[in-house]
This record gives sequence, C-alpha cells and structure tokens, in this order.
Amino acid sequence: MELLIPLDGASRKPLYEQIYTYICREIRNGNLQAGERLPSTRMLAEHLKVSRSTTQMAYSQLEAEGYIEARPCLGYFVCRVEELVEISRLENGHTEQEPECPDKNEILVDFSPRGIDLNSFPYNTWRKLSRNVLADEQKEMFLPGIRQGELDLREAIRSYLHGARGVNCSASQIIVGAGNEYLLMLLAQILGGSRRIAMENPTYKQAYRVFRSLGFSVCPIEMDENGMSLKGLEESGADVAYVMPSHQFPTGIVMPVGRRQELLKWAESGRYLIEDDYDSEFRYRGKPVPALQSLDRAGRVIYFGTFSRCIAPAIRVSYMVLPPELLERYRRQAGFYASTVSRIDQNILCQFLSKGHFERHLNRMRAIYKAKHDGLLEAIAPLEKDFSIRGEYAGIHILLTCKQGRSEEELIDQAEQAGVKVYGLSSYRIGSGADRAATLLLGYANLTLEQICSGADLLIQAWKS
Amino acid sequence: MELLIPLDGASRKPLYEQIYTYICREIRNGNLQAGERLPSTRMLAEHLKVSRSTTQMAYSQLEAEGYIEARPCLGYFVCRVEELVEISRLENGHTEQEPECPDKNEILVDFSPRGIDLNSFPYNTWRKLSRNVLADEQKEMFLPGIRQGELDLREAIRSYLHGARGVNCSASQIIVGAGNEYLLMLLAQILGGSRRIAMENPTYKQAYRVFRSLGFSVCPIEMDENGMSLKGLEESGADVAYVMPSHQFPTGIVMPVGRRQELLKWAESGRYLIEDDYDSEFRYRGKPVPALQSLDRAGRVIYFGTFSRCIAPAIRVSYMVLPPELLERYRRQAGFYASTVSRIDQNILCQFLSKGHFERHLNRMRAIYKAKHDGLLEAIAPLEKDFSIRGEYAGIHILLTCKQGRSEEELIDQAEQAGVKVYGLSSYRIGSGADRAATLLLGYANLTLEQICSGADLLIQAWKS
Repeated sequence: MELLIPLDGASRKPLYEQIYTYICREIRNGNLQAGERLPSTRMLAEHLKVSRSTTQMAYSQLEAEGYIEARPCLGYFVCRVEELVEISRLENGHTEQEPECPDKNEILVDFSPRGIDLNSFPYNTWRKLSRNVLADEQKEMFLPGIRQGELDLREAIRSYLHGARGVNCSASQIIVGAGNEYLLMLLAQILGGSRRIAMENPTYKQAYRVFRSLGFSVCPIEMDENGMSLKGLEESGADVAYVMPSHQFPTGIVMPVGRRQELLKWAESGRYLIEDDYDSEFRYRGKPVPALQSLDRAGRVIYFGTFSRCIAPAIRVSYMVLPPELLERYRRQAGFYASTVSRIDQNILCQFLSKGHFERHLNRMRAIYKAKHDGLLEAIAPLEKDFSIRGEYAGIHILLTCKQGRSEEELIDQAEQAGVKVYGLSSYRIGSGADRAATLLLGYANLTLEQICSGADLLIQAWKS
Repeated sequence: MELLIPLDGASRKPLYEQIYTYICREIRNGNLQAGERLPSTRMLAEHLKVSRSTTQMAYSQLEAEGYIEARPCLGYFVCRVEELVEISRLENGHTEQEPECPDKNEILVDFSPRGIDLNSFPYNTWRKLSRNVLADEQKEMFLPGIRQGELDLREAIRSYLHGARGVNCSASQIIVGAGNEYLLMLLAQILGGSRRIAMENPTYKQAYRVFRSLGFSVCPIEMDENGMSLKGLEESGADVAYVMPSHQFPTGIVMPVGRRQELLKWAESGRYLIEDDYDSEFRYRGKPVPALQSLDRAGRVIYFGTFSRCIAPAIRVSYMVLPPELLERYRRQAGFYASTVSRIDQNILCQFLSKGHFERHLNRMRAIYKAKHDGLLEAIAPLEKDFSIRGEYAGIHILLTCKQGRSEEELIDQAEQAGVKVYGLSSYRIGSGADRAATLLLGYANLTLEQICSGADLLIQAWKS
C-alpha cells in the first residue's frame, strides 16, 4: 500500500505531525481499515523524502494513541477505530486532531458511561462566587496558600464527608490536590517503594494506568457477587488494595458489610486499602451506603473523593483522607510540596460547599439522573427476556448481561449498525480472559430522555433474536 | 522539665493536635528555647493521661515540621526557631498555627529572597478576563480539556518563549501542569528508572526535595564562577543535570556560552539537561541571555518555566518543553494523565498572554524591581569596603560576601539584633561543607523602597567592624 501524504515544508506544523494527522484521519474516516498493513517507516520515509526518524515519530505517536499496532517481524497494522473515537472524544473533551469526516456508521445515540450532564450546572452561582473571591479586598488570593489545601475548604470537605459518607477524620487528615491522578502520585511517594497493588478486575482503567506508570506491580483480582475475592487477594501477595466499595466501576457491585469487614481485617497487619468513592453521590433507592472508611478502626483506609464528577470535569479538585500513620509520613516526606490547586479555585469551591450550593446541586442532579435512570429501565424492559440488568439504582450507567450465547463484539456491532454506541465490559478488564457472558455498559448521564428512549428502541430492534 | 498542657477531651481537635499546637506555640514565643530537652513521649503520655501513640504523633509532627529534633539515645530537643518562622511564613503563605506572640527579636525589615511584589498585579484585568471566560456562552469551559494543556495556551506560551527566550519548539512539545513540582513528577515517570541527577550546589532546595522524594539519587556538584563544574559533573556519573543557566539560584551566576556548550556536549550521548528558567524575566542591564534550550541541536534539553513567579504564586501554572525523543515517550507512557490545571484558569491565562497583558505586566514589574535593586545597591554602598556584591542586575536578590573572616552565623545574628533578617548562603547547600567566605542573600522584591533603605542603614550599623 502506498500513502500519498501531501507534506507542506513551509508549514509551522512539523512534518511528523502532518504525517500523523493524515494517517489518523484516514483511519478515522475508514479509508484505512482495521487490520490493514502500513508501509514500513523506512519505505514511507524514502517515498516522502523525509528522514526515517520523522516517520518513526509519526508511527510512534499513532501507536501511542492506539491507532496502529506494531506486530513483531510483521510491521504496523491499523487498529479498530471505534474505541479510539470514544477515548479521544470522552476522555479528552476534544482532541487537537478533530476528525473532519463522519464515522462510518453514524452514531445517533452514544450510551457513554463517562459523560456527565452539565446542562444543570449552576453557572450563574459559580460566576458569582468567582467574582466575590476576586473582589478588590481579596489580594491575598494571589499569594501562595497552605500546601495541604486551604483550611476552610478542608473543613467544608470534612463536614460534607462526615454527614454524607460517615467518614471520620479531621481537616488535618485531608490533602487537596489537582485530581486523583496527582494525589496518587503523591500517595506513591508516601507509601514508598514498589508496592504490589491489588485491583478489582474489571476496574477503572485510568487508575490502573497510573499505578503502572508509578512502578506499582498490579495484581488484578477476580470478583464474585460481593466484590473483590478475598481468596484472590490473599493469594496475590499484594500489600495495598484499590477498591470501590460503594459502587464498583464498571460492575456496579455494592460491597456488603461482611466483605468490607474481611477487607479491613486483611489490611490490619500493616496493609492499606485505597477506597475510591468516585460516585457515591448518586444513589436512587434505599439509604446511601456509608464509606468503608467509616468502619475503619485501625487506620488502614485511604479515602479518595473528587469534585470532577459531581460538579464538573473542569474543576480539577480531588482530595484524599490519610489515616494518622500515613499523615505523619506525608508531613515528613511530602509535606514540602506546594498545593497544585490555585487558591482562588479552592476558595470558590469552598464557598460553593459551605453556602449550601453543593448540596442543592447534588439534590438536583440526583433527581435528574434518577429520571434518566428510570426512563432507561422502562425503555429497555422488552430486553429483559434476553438480558439481565445489573448495577441499577446507583451511579450513571447500568449493565446488560446477555442470557444467550451471543458475543460482546456481535452485540456491539449490531448496535452500531443501528446507530447506537454501547460499551463492552471486557474493555475494562486488565489482561485477557473474557467474562463468561457478554455484558454491555449503558451510560445515560449526558443523554436527554428522548435520546435514551430512542436509543433503547434502536437496541431492541438491533438485538431482536 | 514538665509540660502543663491543658487538654480538652470534648474538643473536635484531636488530642495529638492540641499537644502539637501547645508545644509549637511555646517554641515560637520562646518559652521553650533552642537546645532544651523535651520530656520523653512515654513520660508526657503518663503525665497527660493519654496514650503513648498520641504523644508520639504530636512529636512526629513537630519533628516533621522542624520544631524539634530527635537525638539518638538522648531524646527530643527544641530546634532554632527563626528559620521556622521564615519557612512557615514565606513558603506556606500562612500556617494553620499562626504564632500568637511576636518573635523574640522584632524583625523590622525582612530581606527574604522568596517574596514577590503583588502590589502592581493587574487585579482588574485578571477579574475582567475571568468574567469573560465564565460568560454565558462558555459552557464548554466546564468540560474536560486537552490533557497536555489547552492548545491556545500552549501556542501563546510557544510564541512568548520564542520571542523572549529564543526557545525553539512547537506547541505540541509543551506540557502544561499545576506547578513545576507536578511536572517533575511527570518527568520522572517519562525518564523512568532511578536516575542519577546532578545539581548545582548551592541550589534551589525545593527541587532537591522533589528529586529525593521521587527516588532520584542526587549528586551535588560544586560551582566555579561559570557555574556547574564540568569536571565534577563528569566524575559524578549522573545522567541528568538540573541547571539554572540564566540566573542560578541562589548564587546569581549567569552561565557563559562556553560552559553551556560544554554541558550540551556532555548531554549529547543520551544524557539530559533540565533547564529551570525560573526568573529569566527580570534582567536590568544588557541583553537578556537566551535560554540554553536555544543552543540545543541534539534534543537534550528539557526546558522548565513557571508563571508563579512572574505573575503570582497562586497561579499554579508551569510548563515544560520536551525534546522530541521525550515527547514520544510522554505520549506513550504518560499521555493518559488528565491536565492538572482547570480549563477555566488555562483560558484566563491564555487571554492574559495573548492580549498583551503579560508583556505589559512584565515591563512594569521589571521597572519596579529595577528601582528597588538600584535603591538597594545605593543604600548598601558603604558596605562595599567589607563586602563584595554579586548576583546583581538580574533576579530579585543580591549576594554580599564578607571580605574578612566573620562567620555567616555571626553576621545573621548581628543583623537580627538590629531587627533585620538576612539569609545565609549555606542554608541552600546540599550536605555540609560551608562556603569559604560568609555570604548573605538579600531579597528585595516585596519590600518598599523605604524599607530597603532603612534595612540597609540598620545593616550598616550592625556590621560596623
């Protein structure tokens, strides 16, 4: 295959980027199909009269972003594109290289489990609070703040966590940071050494990538209906476990108190549990389940929470609650790090919390998400003879498990033919090993009720057996 | 010695924190003096009728923050307090435990090298830009942005760096992050492994702490009048060197082009140079020295810059410019990390840069700092017979080196008796080994001209030989 890539030597855009952009677009618009082999970097370089390092760099970038894959001794091949579009659109907001052509199958309804509904975000309130914080008399807002996070904000978080999640801590145990990923980098330095960390499988892949990049050795642990298998955990040799007990992502499992106690017992002898309570705010039936941390008497739980999900993704504020032993180590080993969140932003957020706006916003969003959740359950009711539904009544996605022998890929393809995007559970697994039955994730947060209903109708048609 | 610490079991403040706060205050107000021995944790626990882990935790925190030190087999002793006050006031903005009593010697003029002048910060402009960015039609500001940083902001940074610093790069090589420290954490993951890093000695201690915490093995390298000794560098076995060629902190040395070329040559064979261009903006005589990166043909320089210093500390935005080889590794290994700076803040900053406000602000601050710099040089002229002056005409501090045999400590003490705080060069050294001659840092950024002159007068009196 020959690639006729028009290069512009006068452009400010480096040549490798021009090559990257061209191939990227060709893959996205389907001119280059999954499985097709690309010319070697040497051949392409000769053909385009550029240096080999230029084509190598373009290919590396394409490979890094998952557009192409290198197969040893065979060369570079185009990957499946659907997943890519999803990653770039949803993780990244938008990318620099926005595809200029529509996808092959036009997607009418995208049940992305990552979206959130920003239509009801209280923009006016946020603007007003920003204005107040930046008012004349607040010049100290531009000075460096407390490294651990502004005290008022930490006190507001403590108060919220205590009331809503049963978390027991003082404000001095809370570390505020610019996102969970940053806080995990900090935690890695506090924990020290190269730890073995157990993760539920399937899990939140982003956390998996962070742990890998930080040099943790990750032990994926299978789950039963109560969450992480304790047998698997004990056999793994891990000394830290990362769990989402309130609403596991992506399975939606709520860990019962028995399993929680077992985990706490496992951790008692010098081990740690990282509790990621990422979407505990959204629960539509029954009482909220208190955090695992609230049961922790031995100081073994490190609690993580974020405002990116329940306020807005652009609000890069997360927090972790350290047990006393680790707080001491934080002060000694990492207490010198300056805060990564601007003092202005911390103060806006603090006022949002302490003046009751946060609670009102959560109540509103809970009502909105519940209506969408109820609408989706009702609309997909006809699927219930072929699929069992899990993970409902909490969070912002549900799971459909196929009762017959159809494969995940087949179901995803059929949905896509009908213009609906659904997400396979297996893409959240670490390593290979498929789930026994095909399971699909349907997120509904950033869809309208109309989109939810028409999406459900299209699925019912597409999956008619 | 007995400590009569009033504890309130009903308080929401944990007991260990009450103990910590009490001792902390006693040290700060001088009731506990440097060198005094504290009761053992066991004795204090018995005396206060609390558990030993409570007193241990209080002591650990005091130790972590440098109030007390443990001497093996002897117990805990009170540290010198002056340095603490400085650290907590200047690094931390203010602390949770603000000292309630004045220091023993009242400080009238503090020549802190860390302060910056915020009186001329264009608050109104910043407020207006914030309002624009948060205007009605800008709802996408609350969605997640590009992981590497907003494209417009990176383009504005590229353009500034090219024009002002001679840096050659494309916007795609720039990674925006919440402070240098975060970017160093990211860089450590990109560089991988446990690297040996060479640092100029004396140096910027905060970067030293970060490298240590990230598991780098730090090789302090002595400096001659041209900067880092190449012989020392070659003997160290380091594969990365962290340098401040434009204006070394704290010595103020500007690295001449010959030494720069030698460093680049050293790095050519697979090594890297981290160029921290932290205060290149402030130069009062001659042409600005272009960045080391501008001479780099082999792609070995990683350029770091920050807006914390030249705009305001609360603006937690820094950037690094990666050479192509590392950019590729970033994309492959760390490209999944979400941006740590809120999209809103990035857009405010972007407008500040692209609408010319940044340039105007820099020009204004350069004029203000130059006036203070000139005022200080004039006011300390009478000291010139006993001291030689270095590091002038750039940055926001100067150095005074004593020509006679007086010690750093003696000079600092004499200044303090007179109500003036000056800073010893040796406190910026890694490891022991004092400088041959006593050298003092005098920062002037956040002092008024009046304070500068009266401070200088007090010093002249205090140091009369």
